Amino acid sequence: MKLNIALLAGDGIGPEVIDQAVKVSNAIAKKYNHEISWTPALTGAAAIDAVGEPYPDETHAVCEAADAVLFGAIGHPRFDNDPSAKVRPEQGLLKMRQKLGLFANVRPTFTFPSLIDKSPLKRERIEGTDLIILRELTGGVYFGERGRKDNGNTAFDTMTYTRAEIQRLAKKGFEMAMTRSKKLCCVDKANVLESSRLWRETVQAMEKDYPEVTVSYEFVDAVAMRLVQWPKGYDVIITENLFGDILTDEASVISGSMGLMPSASVGTKTRLYEPIHGSYPQAAGKDIANPLATVLSAAMMFEDFDLKEEAQAIRDVVNKSLAEGVVSEDLAEGGKAYKTSEIGDWLAKNI
Amino acid sequence: MKLNIALLAGDGIGPEVIDQAVKVSNAIAKKYNHEISWTPALTGAAAIDAVGEPYPDETHAVCEAADAVLFGAIGHPRFDNDPSAKVRPEQGLLKMRQKLGLFANVRPTFTFPSLIDKSPLKRERIEGTDLIILRELTGGVYFGERGRKDNGNTAFDTMTYTRAEIQRLAKKGFEMAMTRSKKLCCVDKANVLESSRLWRETVQAMEKDYPEVTVSYEFVDAVAMRLVQWPKGYDVIITENLFGDILTDEASVISGSMGLMPSASVGTKTRLYEPIHGSYPQAAGKDIANPLATVLSAAMMFEDFDLKEEAQAIRDVVNKSLAEGVVSEDLAEGGKAYKTSEIGDWLAKNI
Ligand SMILES: CC(C)[C@H](C(=O)O)[C@@H](O)C(=O)O
Ligand SMILES: CC(C)[C@H](C(=O)O)[C@@H](O)C(=O)O
Repeated sequence: MKLNIALLAGDGIGPEVIDQAVKVSNAIAKKYNHEISWTPALTGAAAIDAVGEPYPDETHAVCEAADAVLFGAIGHPRFDNDPSAKVRPEQGLLKMRQKLGLFANVRPTFTFPSLIDKSPLKRERIEGTDLIILRELTGGVYFGERGRKDNGNTAFDTMTYTRAEIQRLAKKGFEMAMTRSKKLCCVDKANVLESSRLWRETVQAMEKDYPEVTVSYEFVDAVAMRLVQWPKGYDVIITENLFGDILTDEASVISGSMGLMPSASVGTKTRLYEPIHGSYPQAAGKDIANPLATVLSAAMMFEDFDLKEEAQAIRDVVNKSLAEGVVSEDLAEGGKAYKTSEIGDWLAKNI
Repeated sequence: MKLNIALLAGDGIGPEVIDQAVKVSNAIAKKYNHEISWTPALTGAAAIDAVGEPYPDETHAVCEAADAVLFGAIGHPRFDNDPSAKVRPEQGLLKMRQKLGLFANVRPTFTFPSLIDKSPLKRERIEGTDLIILRELTGGVYFGERGRKDNGNTAFDTMTYTRAEIQRLAKKGFEMAMTRSKKLCCVDKANVLESSRLWRETVQAMEKDYPEVTVSYEFVDAVAMRLVQWPKGYDVIITENLFGDILTDEASVISGSMGLMPSASVGTKTRLYEPIHGSYPQAAGKDIANPLATVLSAAMMFEDFDLKEEAQAIRDVVNKSLAEGVVSEDLAEGGKAYKTSEIGDWLAKNI
């Protein structure tokens, strides 16, 4: 297969972890006779510095022309505590999601046998967890009108959804549930929010098209509790953008490390693959970040190209590295900590 | 002391747990020579059924005239899955918060020595946790404009804050931090939301008035993760209404049971005390609910009347009941499960 992949390293540890995913993907390509051409492009603070824009048109063109996008991380602390900053790296991320039509973020949550005891949660609570959160990614309060009034003394953001936006996300949820245990949980705050009531009403109306799927409706506050109490109670969760942002990060605790969790963003055009962790600026440039979430994101990418064996080969080598203790600082626990680049080399060699 | 307490039992298990808090409070009054007069009033689904309104004017008058309000729970499932319901029990709760000016919800999170192993989190992660979440309660998306457009096919909710609303909540947070470890964490989503940027900007400007307090600013998604990863890292957390709703429920997992966590809502007028759990309709009328969260809410009430010894006596007897296994179904783990009313009787007798 010939693959043309856009490579958006972004900020902070982004470039370092992306490099390892490229090494591993190239090793896969070699072994399975594929041809991958990588096209790098700028995003985030890096793009602001270079061209004054966090998601430049040239980058968008590269993404549109590609078969898929592999993405690192975005964000830089110099913007976080400056409420007056006019251009922010995150705007690039949001613009990218919107312009590429990436309306669904797929975040699997699972445990790694060799790491299960690293989770803050007890083994018996999490062993066997296998859930997927499907987060709506191009609507809600992220994209509604926002601003100031009264000389800057009042601020507002608008959380808004259309029935069509909810339907296309929910459809993916129902379809995914059909390939799994046929359980779907719709998370909202319908006891308060009108947009949540539209979610609930829309999903309820779709139930008849998927008679085999058992749908439950739960409030976001209750789910924030149950997700850590009994994650095995969930299979496929669908939810709106902001709730999804919060719940997916929370769910990452189950696996014991954010540094391990991959994600895919899908929609109407090119798909995008990225680790769920952020740009982790404190670690940038030190060759200490955990590259596995990005490497596993590349595995999701191969899977979606229907290259299942290739995807499995990546997961296998990752599990092998964990079992053999070839791990970065965050997982080393007093043992030897490997460098980011060393882990990438090890994985590529062992493919 | 003469105390006039409004008694709002509400829905579901509300009446049952409130009964036990009354028993315990009366035992305290007897022992310490106080006089409590209880004035019951209707709220929630119970009030809708009786007078068509979840927070009737008469109830408000009772609350305003009282020295404090003791509140059970609100909510009934027959409204949850009916997106078209015109009057909802929760509206009563929101109206009550607004009309009583209860702009801050204080939710302490701590562990109980005898229950620590019931938490889904590992002992070493949570032992010694002592944090308080101060949730803004009368602003944000709960009270902004909401509605439908396009023949009902678009729904919107508005998240809005004024500088003054943020200041009064943050002031409480700074003051609370001063009486504790002088650490304050402001939780927002300032990388996306304009209202969060106003929060951050407002709290930043207040820092100079509390030079001894160390303030950190964290994003809500990161906190949703860290709160269960390392709760001991937090002391006083301040946050807006919706984030507070989610994070306080999540934090309840730390203690091992929602059935144990009390809260106080404070503001410009009468204070209100309530368990953080909901109306738990499946258990209603069965005399099986855990009354301790409500009993401990009564302890917070005594504490705020500066009756510290009385508050401590309640906490002591609760700890004693836990240590001696006088617990409800949710904590019984195969051992004897006491009835809600039996626990109330036991506590009152042992005061
Ligand atoms: C960086 C931020 C804007 C982003 C989001 O909130 O969507 C991030 O937290 C994520 O989850 O990808
Ligand atoms: C019942 C509901 C409206 C309420 C809220 O969201 O505030 C509840 O969850 C709470 O936290 O008191």
